[in-house]
Amino acid sequence: MCSSRLSDRGDKDSIETGDLLMPKFDGDGLITAVVTDVATGEVLMVGYMNAEALERTIETGEAWYWSRSRQSFWKKGETSGQVQKVHQILTDCDQDALVLKVSVEGNGATCHVGYRSCFFRKIVNSGSGPLRLERVESERVYAPEDVYGKS
Amino acid sequence: MCSSRLSDRGDKDSIETGDLLMPKFDGDGLITAVVTDVATGEVLMVGYMNAEALERTIETGEAWYWSRSRQSFWKKGETSGQVQKVHQILTDCDQDALVLKVSVEGNGATCHVGYRSCFFRKIVNSGSGPLRLERVESERVYAPEDVYGKS
Repeated sequence: MCSSRLSDRGDKDSIETGDLLMPKFDGDGLITAVVTDVATGEVLMVGYMNAEALERTIETGEAWYWSRSRQSFWKKGETSGQVQKVHQILTDCDQDALVLKVSVEGNGATCHVGYRSCFFRKIVNSGSGPLRLERVESERVYAPEDVYGKS
Repeated sequence: MCSSRLSDRGDKDSIETGDLLMPKFDGDGLITAVVTDVATGEVLMVGYMNAEALERTIETGEAWYWSRSRQSFWKKGETSGQVQKVHQILTDCDQDALVLKVSVEGNGATCHVGYRSCFFRKIVNSGSGPLRLERVESERVYAPEDVYGKS
């Protein structure tokens, strides 16, 4: 973007309690974005944004990320239809993380595996041995195997 | 720890839909942990854990992190009393992020600035000019200035 609407990092007080957005991007130029369902508060996914993805998200009201694996911009839902309409963006005290409150379009799922949330498994501690996972979402919203033709 | 209960990373299917905990730690050996209030679902903070902090958290039921700024283990609440009792830990599809559902002890605040959540400000887009922040929590739980003797 030609002119950024993000402010440069200021002193500790202005970052922690001030009223200017001064996001801290990590060594790869990214900030963590926690995505929650605006209606239920459920955490749906964690994504990463660079400055331009954040500005695109704010300007368009739809969530854009930076794909670390593909090293490219990624508009969530562009192919799946699972577009995230952004109702609110929060930042934390040191402005190095964001929370996006969204509603999900399309089939309402967020996870490419087919679940509503990417966080569909909990850790089970039976006391010894390898730690196990157990599903907390009983049913998938859709079966991507069918969509993608896998058996 | 002498023997880890974390499994090594497996193939894509076992990571994404399997029942073994195979966390992915980044180049600094850390995984992102999103902390939510077990009662309300509110996002309280984002922290980072290395393998041992994760194992301590699972074993003790109280949240341990790795402090990136201090480069040391950090048991949340050790000095403030704002200990996080962990009710559930979820992992996402690619097992590179965690959600902790916690209840907060002590005065019930999480943020060192005094608010219940570190995410106490939202981004306001007035259409042009620098992006502004506005508080969404009207009152602090406590005033750390008083606690720490600052004016």
